[in-house]
Amino acid sequence: MRSVSIIGIGCSKFGEQWDDSLRDLVMDAGVPAMEDANVSGEDIDALYVGNMSGGRFIEQEHIGALIADCAGLARLHIPSTRVEAACASGGLALRQAVMAVASGYSDIVIAAGVEKMTDVSGGSAADALASAADREWECFLGATFPALYAMTARLHMHRYGTTQEQLAQVAVKNHHNGNMNPLSQYHMEVTVDKVINSPMVADPLHVLDCSPITDGAAAVILAPSDTAKRYTDTPVKILASAQASDTLALHDRRDITTLDATVYAARSAFRQAGIETKEIDLAEVHDAFTIGEILALEDLGFMEKGEGGKAAEEGLTQIGGQTPINSSGGLKACGHPVGATGIKQAYEVVLQLRGEAGKRQVEGAEIGLTHNVGGVGGTALVHIMSR
Amino acid sequence: MRSVSIIGIGCSKFGEQWDDSLRDLVMDAGVPAMEDANVSGEDIDALYVGNMSGGRFIEQEHIGALIADCAGLARLHIPSTRVEAACASGGLALRQAVMAVASGYSDIVIAAGVEKMTDVSGGSAADALASAADREWECFLGATFPALYAMTARLHMHRYGTTQEQLAQVAVKNHHNGNMNPLSQYHMEVTVDKVINSPMVADPLHVLDCSPITDGAAAVILAPSDTAKRYTDTPVKILASAQASDTLALHDRRDITTLDATVYAARSAFRQAGIETKEIDLAEVHDAFTIGEILALEDLGFMEKGEGGKAAEEGLTQIGGQTPINSSGGLKACGHPVGATGIKQAYEVVLQLRGEAGKRQVEGAEIGLTHNVGGVGGTALVHIMSR
Repeated sequence: MRSVSIIGIGCSKFGEQWDDSLRDLVMDAGVPAMEDANVSGEDIDALYVGNMSGGRFIEQEHIGALIADCAGLARLHIPSTRVEAACASGGLALRQAVMAVASGYSDIVIAAGVEKMTDVSGGSAADALASAADREWECFLGATFPALYAMTARLHMHRYGTTQEQLAQVAVKNHHNGNMNPLSQYHMEVTVDKVINSPMVADPLHVLDCSPITDGAAAVILAPSDTAKRYTDTPVKILASAQASDTLALHDRRDITTLDATVYAARSAFRQAGIETKEIDLAEVHDAFTIGEILALEDLGFMEKGEGGKAAEEGLTQIGGQTPINSSGGLKACGHPVGATGIKQAYEVVLQLRGEAGKRQVEGAEIGLTHNVGGVGGTALVHIMSR
Repeated sequence: MRSVSIIGIGCSKFGEQWDDSLRDLVMDAGVPAMEDANVSGEDIDALYVGNMSGGRFIEQEHIGALIADCAGLARLHIPSTRVEAACASGGLALRQAVMAVASGYSDIVIAAGVEKMTDVSGGSAADALASAADREWECFLGATFPALYAMTARLHMHRYGTTQEQLAQVAVKNHHNGNMNPLSQYHMEVTVDKVINSPMVADPLHVLDCSPITDGAAAVILAPSDTAKRYTDTPVKILASAQASDTLALHDRRDITTLDATVYAARSAFRQAGIETKEIDLAEVHDAFTIGEILALEDLGFMEKGEGGKAAEEGLTQIGGQTPINSSGGLKACGHPVGATGIKQAYEVVLQLRGEAGKRQVEGAEIGLTHNVGGVGGTALVHIMSR
């Protein structure tokens, strides 16, 4: 397989973008990415798009062709493929794009992710999101995503002594980071008190433990590493790209305080990269809920099982700490346009590895990791990148 | 790239399967495919699933993980990827699976397609299907799929003298073929009179010019050609796998009587296979509407532009004719569970190349082609296979 590098990145503003359609969002990410990579439409061989639920959010499927079309690439008739793995759709698009370049099928490939979640036609965004869980065995019985993650949190608290304050600390850190990110949805600091006194959504998760409903898009452009320098002085090499699955419904898992899909994907990724967890300088992980970040810390191997809460409390995961986690603000504060999140994670890591992350720069970052989860771990994607 | 072969196939009954959920349908296709290939779960490296709109039809996204789960493969944590390109989702899953094996990423891969279209939760199946078209520029103005294809038919009739009787002849042939297929939705012969006297849906397309709403699933199993004989005595080699895109909305095309995505995908496929159109012994093409088969005959190069209607009238496309088209009954009579169709086309061609198609066997078939279209040609996939 050929080595693959990211040669360009773009990201739209994240938030409630009432004046922007899905097309607008894609352009806000795709055009800067192409400019950043110094490529034009004629250079592009293929397009992979992560989108969770255009069908339910905006009554639009066939998202691959739509995006090729509005990017002006349909006239070149290039293959455009939409992939979906719920909230991991973006990471999945990145992996398919990496495979296309690594294998030699394509040279220059765009991996994009997008979700338009406001202006939902019929039903609620929460109901649309619930389609990532097992509709027949979970949702029909009343479970939504906060409820499912709340169960993992309750057992984690029971078994490991994790506290609501520790969960809240994840939100405090990520809002602090997000406040330094010009593209993030929220620019506000929160305190532990504010989080645990915010309205309860699903015990023990308060509204400030949950990621928001967000419109947004992100794009990265890939090329074979041996030609990457033709396009940019600062290519970022992809050392590993891994994917794993698990049962969709939580009740079928061996242990709901571990996302085995993350464990398996991480194991494969570290083997591909030939490095150990401690060599990672920063990571963007899937904090759809604060408990999600704690599970990720443990399942990715940054902390021992049960130690994730303490790590948050002790500040090991803040910028300047042992391993900065979610310098972008994460899903929590930067926002979580579900199909875009996996690509935005790559955007943030590339920015950090290039040393272009401004106030939130992780000093001396050389190797970064992204971790994107679909549902409550039915799918997980892990990518490792180095400058 | 490695040569790739199909070593096992399976297909559920197509039709209104009121007692079968999406999971049941997948099992009805996947289990026979694995038995046919003599593989067990432990042999499978990856899964690709084509599904157009689980979100709109059954309120379920995250279809990749769901299917890995109900197939018992989630416990093995293998990567499972859902791809979507509207009615071409099945063909797209096949191409992604071919790429995974050809590149050496995986050895044994399942490509499946499924759609559960009856029991729609809220809205109609026709509205869900319309999400394959350009929602903002076509559907909001009242266009549905029959209306869009009707426009291509009207211009084809005006420009080339194609008649309603010629369109009807496509339905007559495909119902005749479908009547010989035990898995097809309809087992009834129709006549030209019956078609043109059936209720008008969108002038000039009558209800018997349209494919139906169908539940169904299909699966094929791929392996590197050099190990295929370990699993089966009758592997079918994939000579070409091609994909192209076009503008989503019809009004942006240079010519609506030609689907350029088909033209480009076919050109790429024939180049890959190193053969000419006349060497194809049979083809399964995308007859979502009768005009669709006529466009396909021309755009794939079986007939000159404008001659597709005459070819149908003269019987060139029936079993025993110049090039048998849609021996399965096509989308028209076998049924069109949108995400499954592209895989069912491969199922039929493999059956024919093995000489196992029973009453509808095309004698001496050695090379077959499948042609799967998303929307009105926003995406097209062409595969060529040989025994």
